[in-house]
Amino acid sequence: MPARLAPDQSRGYLVPLGASVRGAGETGIFRRLFAILGQRPRVAIVVASADEALADDLDARLVADGAGHVQRIVLAQRADSEAQTALAVVEHADLVVLCADQPLRLSTLLGGTGLARLLRRRNADGMAVGGIGGGASVLPEHMLGGGAHGSSPRMGNVTLAPGLGLSNRLLIDQGGAGADRLGRLLGALALNPFVLGIGIDADTAAFIGPDNVLEVAGVGSVTIVDPTDVGHSNAADAGPSDPISITNLRVHVLVHGSRYDLDFRRPL
Amino acid sequence: MPARLAPDQSRGYLVPLGASVRGAGETGIFRRLFAILGQRPRVAIVVASADEALADDLDARLVADGAGHVQRIVLAQRADSEAQTALAVVEHADLVVLCADQPLRLSTLLGGTGLARLLRRRNADGMAVGGIGGGASVLPEHMLGGGAHGSSPRMGNVTLAPGLGLSNRLLIDQGGAGADRLGRLLGALALNPFVLGIGIDADTAAFIGPDNVLEVAGVGSVTIVDPTDVGHSNAADAGPSDPISITNLRVHVLVHGSRYDLDFRRPL
Repeated sequence: MPARLAPDQSRGYLVPLGASVRGAGETGIFRRLFAILGQRPRVAIVVASADEALADDLDARLVADGAGHVQRIVLAQRADSEAQTALAVVEHADLVVLCADQPLRLSTLLGGTGLARLLRRRNADGMAVGGIGGGASVLPEHMLGGGAHGSSPRMGNVTLAPGLGLSNRLLIDQGGAGADRLGRLLGALALNPFVLGIGIDADTAAFIGPDNVLEVAGVGSVTIVDPTDVGHSNAADAGPSDPISITNLRVHVLVHGSRYDLDFRRPL
Repeated sequence: MPARLAPDQSRGYLVPLGASVRGAGETGIFRRLFAILGQRPRVAIVVASADEALADDLDARLVADGAGHVQRIVLAQRADSEAQTALAVVEHADLVVLCADQPLRLSTLLGGTGLARLLRRRNADGMAVGGIGGGASVLPEHMLGGGAHGSSPRMGNVTLAPGLGLSNRLLIDQGGAGADRLGRLLGALALNPFVLGIGIDADTAAFIGPDNVLEVAGVGSVTIVDPTDVGHSNAADAGPSDPISITNLRVHVLVHGSRYDLDFRRPL
């Protein structure tokens, strides 16, 4: 178990959210988040143009829940992630929300650009970064880029790709214990047993603070899969169509208000 | 962790199988099972009349895979579970296979009848008992009687009902790590953290021997959820629509050839 390094208490929150987050009246997620971030925060939404419909109601919901100002950065090509107007919006935001259906669509527009570097720097300096749906998967260093779901975890179904790099401790996927994608997350941990796997249900969020404590908000559950004690896995030998075996995973299913220490890997 | 009690080495195999088990050429499950049970075993299929279509190809597949003789016991009402012809078939079988879509449909036809008592006695004396799909869930003392799947585990979604009572250590559900029902199994363990949860993928089986060692056969995986170390669960306080929280579950995803000791609760 990793020791708690001197935490960078000035780092901004990371807030992965499950897909289809509903309004404040239904989940209270954004209101709760804004209570932490401070009154009437300036919010920027980053979305690939192909996914822009996902952001359609989001502006209004954020304002209804207490956002002071919401701007949208739409990325159609990588050059849009170098545009001065986009960078200026992020420079003055209190919260940036990444919105995506397919994480790869967003990460290939962002990766290695000025916007990605600015998001990392501003998060390190205290700005919160959230992600909804596939946008949550993009937040950490490694992400699940593809892979079938609903079937047995098989080596060929699990594809890891580089994400935005805001944490190197997590692997985030949609769908917690209740979803049909937990197998995919287990398969990814067989490949990479150094990170915690986080599965987030719809209408549910994980608030990860500067102290590396995660708190659950919303109507569903967040599933944490800890591979610290993994005994045996066939990941090194399995072919693409082989099912994955992995033993001694520790699993926690956490609901609204539950807290988990990411440094010491234990529920609080 | 329970100590290994003097095992009853004469007890017959328990063989829960995932739904939609295909023929021998595709999975080898029955051929492998018959290699253990001995040449050309006499097989009886027990199925509720409403589910009889599930057994339609099963007779031919069992014969193709090496069964010596296959008879079918169709239950339309509880009186059919007292019929002397049905009891005589089971009295002389080497393997009985329970076949069901909804486990409750079969358990309500079997529970407390002469056929159920005979199945328990003959299994204790060495006869193998298998179950396919919902029929696998019926094998142990407790079973998942209903409950929605694909959604977050919530108290109201988990219904435990009495099964056939061939084991008091297991809770068996369809769908392992790859399925959308693992959350339901986790929810059931929050209610009953004394049993191991076993999730079985389609076209996959668990062979549970008289020595309480489980071996996986087939193309998918068997997921074992061990609640021995469960720390906190909200099961005692949660209302029907509340999501379930449960911490410190140990999870193993096992594939063809993997073995697990049910007494000592560890992979072998």
